[in-house]
Amino acid sequence: MELKINKDHFHKAILDVSKVVSSRTSLPILTGIKIVAKDDSLTLIGSNSDIFIERTIPKVSNGINMFEVYQTGSVVISAKYLGEIIKKLPEDIDLKVNENQTVTIKSGEVISKLNGLMAEEYPSLPEIDLRNNIRITSGDLLEIIKQTVFAASKNETRPVLTGVNFTFQKDLLTCVATNSQRLALKKYKVKSNVEGSFIVPSTALTEILKLFSHESVINLYATETNMLFKSHTISVYTRLIEGSYPNTSGLIPNDSKTIVTLDTKQLLKGIDRASLFGSERNNNITFQINDKSKINISSKSSEMGQIEEMQYIKNITGNEEIRITLDGNFMMDALKVIKEDEVSLHFNGSIRPILILPIGNESQLQLISPVRSQ
Amino acid sequence: MELKINKDHFHKAILDVSKVVSSRTSLPILTGIKIVAKDDSLTLIGSNSDIFIERTIPKVSNGINMFEVYQTGSVVISAKYLGEIIKKLPEDIDLKVNENQTVTIKSGEVISKLNGLMAEEYPSLPEIDLRNNIRITSGDLLEIIKQTVFAASKNETRPVLTGVNFTFQKDLLTCVATNSQRLALKKYKVKSNVEGSFIVPSTALTEILKLFSHESVINLYATETNMLFKSHTISVYTRLIEGSYPNTSGLIPNDSKTIVTLDTKQLLKGIDRASLFGSERNNNITFQINDKSKINISSKSSEMGQIEEMQYIKNITGNEEIRITLDGNFMMDALKVIKEDEVSLHFNGSIRPILILPIGNESQLQLISPVRSQ
Repeated sequence: MELKINKDHFHKAILDVSKVVSSRTSLPILTGIKIVAKDDSLTLIGSNSDIFIERTIPKVSNGINMFEVYQTGSVVISAKYLGEIIKKLPEDIDLKVNENQTVTIKSGEVISKLNGLMAEEYPSLPEIDLRNNIRITSGDLLEIIKQTVFAASKNETRPVLTGVNFTFQKDLLTCVATNSQRLALKKYKVKSNVEGSFIVPSTALTEILKLFSHESVINLYATETNMLFKSHTISVYTRLIEGSYPNTSGLIPNDSKTIVTLDTKQLLKGIDRASLFGSERNNNITFQINDKSKINISSKSSEMGQIEEMQYIKNITGNEEIRITLDGNFMMDALKVIKEDEVSLHFNGSIRPILILPIGNESQLQLISPVRSQ
Repeated sequence: MELKINKDHFHKAILDVSKVVSSRTSLPILTGIKIVAKDDSLTLIGSNSDIFIERTIPKVSNGINMFEVYQTGSVVISAKYLGEIIKKLPEDIDLKVNENQTVTIKSGEVISKLNGLMAEEYPSLPEIDLRNNIRITSGDLLEIIKQTVFAASKNETRPVLTGVNFTFQKDLLTCVATNSQRLALKKYKVKSNVEGSFIVPSTALTEILKLFSHESVINLYATETNMLFKSHTISVYTRLIEGSYPNTSGLIPNDSKTIVTLDTKQLLKGIDRASLFGSERNNNITFQINDKSKINISSKSSEMGQIEEMQYIKNITGNEEIRITLDGNFMMDALKVIKEDEVSLHFNGSIRPILILPIGNESQLQLISPVRSQ
């Protein structure tokens, strides 16, 4: 294998596929990046065995040739060292691999030799049937992921809850994530010849948020065990989580005793302030309504002190007396992914979950269970 | 104590004095900030018992009144909670302390109560004789610190080496830092009626680098046990390190077998590249000269591979054959604080320290001991 390549494009591609590569892995070859050079294509692959990222380098970018393959072949090179060296080299890179897998990298007056590994030992990509696909713009896909993935469980005791459940049914995609104390749901209309439910690991979705930010159209392909998110230059293969996702539709209340409309940003700032004494594990915030014009947001630490504030209610229907304690971090996570200026909070007493809906957008809903009163 | 204060100025002052405040301290009152309100002045103090930072808030800034004291007094408030709450409050702040040291903070519709501590329990500032001082511009002082402090020891076994030795003698300030493997020295002409040597802890100097970046003139005052760095609004009191600083003048070679002139930035980049296989603890870089035109910079990892590059020598005098192994991190630290375009390396064989001098600047020198050959 022998080739010449543009330094910056090579470095960008290495960074992309390195996102899932770890230096601590039970399979040492996965600390490396697989590079495959064919006559007219150059492909990099990185993996943590659950997720594979495949990145092709375009032959021509802005009218300039990005690489030239003199001799085809493939090799696996340490992701850490390859990334560090390519970043620091002064100019275009000549890369050559000999029969002992020694990789010689030249750039200007700099020569480096790295010990490579046999590409044949690298695990192969999951097999995916490319006939049935769903096309979706990257902007929409990223929004769907952002509005749900945060609500998935970080706790491995119920593995299905660590993913987001993608359900395709009659041209409607429904994504749900829950950790059983809070739930985020997003609906999205999309032409699809796929039917069924797929639990996609949050870890894969988080990588997708970083990788596809500049891409325009993404194709989704699903099998029973894997899902592929594929754009022009990047493919992300992820193993699906096995098991049945719980039926969550029964959790969402149909009517509410009290509905309050508030300013989204103001509410977020108020909860942020009230989180003064909170930690990541315990951030109890109390909401109290005594009359129909104002809501009181407060928190308290017996040791340090207390904080409270009033916010004006834009609209209220139903019961005008409420006192409920919620996890402030869950509330902030929910409000951060709402783009609308106003939000409605739907209460059903102090021990039932509250429903949060953006005003003027029916595609998104969130549910948060109260904390037992202090 | 009762006062009204501009939010942003208050927050900036809290951040400044909080720099040395730790939440883990053997003296609980030091987790707090002491606030002293007099009729026409407002002062904040933070400390870790070795260093005190005192910050006064100017009464008027850009023609606007910054604060109004309605009732004088003093209190100690948790630095962590005070900083967090003030940052998030919407507007100007009303602060009131009652006889139980409960601090009530109001801003717009937000009210917070924090449990304060008695100001009388806060340790007092070191006593400093303000008659003898040295005036120095902040730009010059920060440069002197930057060019020396990095070379001080991180290891507490010889406490004197963890500081920078300031020597005032006949209108000349000489600053020296060494960890016994490398040394940085800076000379600076300054009018001074102070004579003597003072070992200033690196930790204090590092805070000074952050605190005085926008100030113009700094006055230094020294006693046998403390030094004070004082600008218009900020005073930093630091305990000095006890003991005698080693005499380092004998270490600096008077002549050299080989002197090589190189481009400073190119050399730094080359060493950075050669550090590919290095870690923070071990980053051996080999320099080799075989003929008078080029220097070879290389490093090697038996497991991962090797890297080497050639750089052109601008000028060479003396012996033309050299091979020496140095700590690449020490070399990079030294080159980073040299502003001149060219640098000369003075060699005396492979087991004697090398001397690094900026070309055209005699106020600064650095010395680095070689590593035993691998």
